[in-house]
Amino acid sequence: MSVRRVDLAETFARFHEQWSPKVVGELNGQMVKLVRFQGEFVWHKHDHEDEMFLVIDGAFRMELRDGNIELSAGQFVIVPRGVEHRPVAERECQVMLFEPATTLNTGDVRNERTLDRLERL
Amino acid sequence: MSVRRVDLAETFARFHEQWSPKVVGELNGQMVKLVRFQGEFVWHKHDHEDEMFLVIDGAFRMELRDGNIELSAGQFVIVPRGVEHRPVAERECQVMLFEPATTLNTGDVRNERTLDRLERL
Repeated sequence: MSVRRVDLAETFARFHEQWSPKVVGELNGQMVKLVRFQGEFVWHKHDHEDEMFLVIDGAFRMELRDGNIELSAGQFVIVPRGVEHRPVAERECQVMLFEPATTLNTGDVRNERTLDRLERL
Repeated sequence: MSVRRVDLAETFARFHEQWSPKVVGELNGQMVKLVRFQGEFVWHKHDHEDEMFLVIDGAFRMELRDGNIELSAGQFVIVPRGVEHRPVAERECQVMLFEPATTLNTGDVRNERTLDRLERL
């Protein structure tokens, strides 16, 4: 059967790297990814892609140039294309991402956190 | 600021209709919708759209022609385009949908449950 059930807690338990999104589903050219955040990411933007962040467990702060948004479990934001952002998590936070299959994690920035290939779980 | 935080529990508390998806976000031509399921829906498929169902609260059964999948909070399925499906919930269940903006709730079927316009919350 081509349809599989994905359990978020079980899938998060299968990896522990931070800032390393894992692909857990794909639909309509979009990917569903799970990621663990802790600490500060890099300021970046995506010129052609909107990005959704849904907190599954914990909390983080989405920093934007015109203000920050605090997010905890059961809350999401959509960061539109072109908008600079930086996720910051004081403690580890589990997040589900929805974004196009083409989205690079660091957007228009390339540094040691850039991941060209993502693992699928 | 164009970026808003959406709280799932607070947003679900703002509506009580069942089988009536509410649009709570849009990105990359896809929509994020919240819906309350209870009882049996109609068998249908979407010829051109994949559809994701993430359970936020409660449980439901996704019936497929080749087997059923039981889903509870924190679990999701992606039903690929062309695959007939029918959600059934014994008790009320809160679900987040992720699907193209063009998706009609009843897919290739038109009946009293078909909704051509969805409210935005």
